[in-house]
Amino acid sequence: MSDAARTSVLGSTGAGDLFQLLRDGRPRTRAELAAITGLARSTIGLRLDALTSLGLVGPVADAISTGGRPPSRVALLPSARVVLAADLGASHAHVAITDLMGAELASHTEHLEISLGPEAVLGWMVEHTDALLERLGKTRADLIAAGIGLPGPVEFSTGRPVNPPIMPGWDAFDVPRWVKRHTESPGRSPLPVYVDNDVNIMALGERTHSWPDVDHLFFLKVATGIGSGIISAGQLQRGAQGIAGDIGHIPVARGAGIFCRCGNEGCLEAIASGPAIAAAMRRDGHDTASGSDVLDLVRSGDLDAVRAVRQAGRDIGEVLTTCVSLINPSVIALGGSMADAGEHLLAGVREVVYSRSMPLATEHLTIVQSRAADSAAILGASMLAIHYALSPEALDTLAAAN
Amino acid sequence: MSDAARTSVLGSTGAGDLFQLLRDGRPRTRAELAAITGLARSTIGLRLDALTSLGLVGPVADAISTGGRPPSRVALLPSARVVLAADLGASHAHVAITDLMGAELASHTEHLEISLGPEAVLGWMVEHTDALLERLGKTRADLIAAGIGLPGPVEFSTGRPVNPPIMPGWDAFDVPRWVKRHTESPGRSPLPVYVDNDVNIMALGERTHSWPDVDHLFFLKVATGIGSGIISAGQLQRGAQGIAGDIGHIPVARGAGIFCRCGNEGCLEAIASGPAIAAAMRRDGHDTASGSDVLDLVRSGDLDAVRAVRQAGRDIGEVLTTCVSLINPSVIALGGSMADAGEHLLAGVREVVYSRSMPLATEHLTIVQSRAADSAAILGASMLAIHYALSPEALDTLAAAN
Repeated sequence: MSDAARTSVLGSTGAGDLFQLLRDGRPRTRAELAAITGLARSTIGLRLDALTSLGLVGPVADAISTGGRPPSRVALLPSARVVLAADLGASHAHVAITDLMGAELASHTEHLEISLGPEAVLGWMVEHTDALLERLGKTRADLIAAGIGLPGPVEFSTGRPVNPPIMPGWDAFDVPRWVKRHTESPGRSPLPVYVDNDVNIMALGERTHSWPDVDHLFFLKVATGIGSGIISAGQLQRGAQGIAGDIGHIPVARGAGIFCRCGNEGCLEAIASGPAIAAAMRRDGHDTASGSDVLDLVRSGDLDAVRAVRQAGRDIGEVLTTCVSLINPSVIALGGSMADAGEHLLAGVREVVYSRSMPLATEHLTIVQSRAADSAAILGASMLAIHYALSPEALDTLAAAN
Repeated sequence: MSDAARTSVLGSTGAGDLFQLLRDGRPRTRAELAAITGLARSTIGLRLDALTSLGLVGPVADAISTGGRPPSRVALLPSARVVLAADLGASHAHVAITDLMGAELASHTEHLEISLGPEAVLGWMVEHTDALLERLGKTRADLIAAGIGLPGPVEFSTGRPVNPPIMPGWDAFDVPRWVKRHTESPGRSPLPVYVDNDVNIMALGERTHSWPDVDHLFFLKVATGIGSGIISAGQLQRGAQGIAGDIGHIPVARGAGIFCRCGNEGCLEAIASGPAIAAAMRRDGHDTASGSDVLDLVRSGDLDAVRAVRQAGRDIGEVLTTCVSLINPSVIALGGSMADAGEHLLAGVREVVYSRSMPLATEHLTIVQSRAADSAAILGASMLAIHYALSPEALDTLAAAN
């Protein structure tokens, strides 16, 4: 038995799932699908009917005739339906239409403050969704699902933000309900809408983009805030309240006397985020208004900026040392705007993690810059929507309603 | 769709598993099992045949006649087969025979140093297994599987210890192979043997004993060493090298200048474990040779001992604060011998975790003493063996060999 099979058992999981199987794009016969899954032929038939009626799956002609009547094969039709993927950040918004593999077909980004509130921000999102669909010659009826990332804690089961610190007006707002209402399409059932924390969707995107076979991936975002998305045993870990990975307010040694907007002292975010580094440099006489000014100085070779970023990397490394002991990931990917400082931030992180962790935990540990980079969030939002909207349970509901 | 269903989808999981269904003890017809699982009637038949031939499942008479020929129901036979469960600690060893629900039928404990090496310790285990079976009027042929906990990192997929610091002679030793060889039974296929870290099995046992509905449980063991077992999204998290939860060597603030046996400075284990508390008290003139002497003083009301244990709780709380932010558990259970200090250790932990964590992470967080207490490890070892040995894949193999 493989380790994956062993793992799947303890978690009361079981056979694979039909759509997940077909997501690799390979055509298969009904008999093959029944053999692989152990599901009854009648169950296979029902699920394929649902997928076909939704336009997701269709018959495929065999390339080579084997003589006689060939068995009919079915396969995923990746661009028959499309996905709305949105990354709504603290001060930027990015909306895209993707295909069923997560590839961007059209997208739009602009500066937008999340603090404008849910109706303004989601209204902007819907407006641009319609414009992007039109640009592609498509309509709302072509959307199969929506995935949305927000810069705060989200109760995943309901899609409602939970006490988000930088999102006034969003607390407990029913995002899926609002989006469903404002994306109605005549004769269609409401759009399935999935909402998650932005760092969680970045972790999903990073894995899809570059580490599909890595089951233990830790994604760290360093930007205006600091947060992480944890994939363990191949699953995104959200925790009991959906706030797993919220490491910005863990205290670090160098933080004594530095107060955080959360009310505590010495939080990682108050020491090592973009604004925190900029503030520390201002205290030393530099003219750095934001993290992006710090990055400009780093790029110009300014030694003070390089030193400040490297020190932030060490502070982050202090917290990551604990993450490494606790979670034992095989890959740590650093993303977010401050990861653009490249090797300097990474060098500080590595210096501390490799010197302070147990040898067994770092022997096979890779610490790198995010490879998905700017595409992580949209790709992850699209994957989130596809995974959940096209689960067997959801497909049954969709098919029954259509 | 429930959150659990949503969660199961993203991890490429699917329908339930037949034996897991029957583990609740409720009798069901074949038609009911097919309806619940979506599996083909022929698949249900094959799996039930396998379970029946192994003596795990059998027909059950209906209590109430509904007229006509009643449909035949099947149910789990909890004590038809038994499980070998062992908790092999640093200086103690506990071996038990349990039923299929994890209940101890017979057990034996004694002082035994793990450093005697694998052949001596596992030999002791097999010898006492045979004696316990005899006491129960059973033989090796009645064993369905073995679950073993060891006090060090274990590569779960192979059952081999990986660089275990306090287990000379055990590194990479093939525990399952040795145990299979030494528990041979004429005409029977080899015993399935599962090996895991002792704190992982304690976490499984704690959950089974008292928190079956809690999907995010953090089990902390404080004894000669300090370690944790993490259950997230209902699954035991082992990490990439099987060392997730190994938090004993995370540095804590009060540890500056105190060196750990791992070679680093200020590790949690060097400050807050039983021996560390005893050593600190010796430096203050007390006659405490071990953690158990400290506990005796605590029980006698010695204020210095109470203070030392409470401070250890605070140091542990410092690390747990990070665990809470990172993993977002809903229950933290404190076990291991030092947890017998009761409210004093717990009070120190709570003091720091509740003051230093984000309100959202602690709003619904319960921090308690382990409820399974001394039974956690054996119960967990038994559950480990049952879960894996009786997975569909394993049952197929077993049935084919029998």
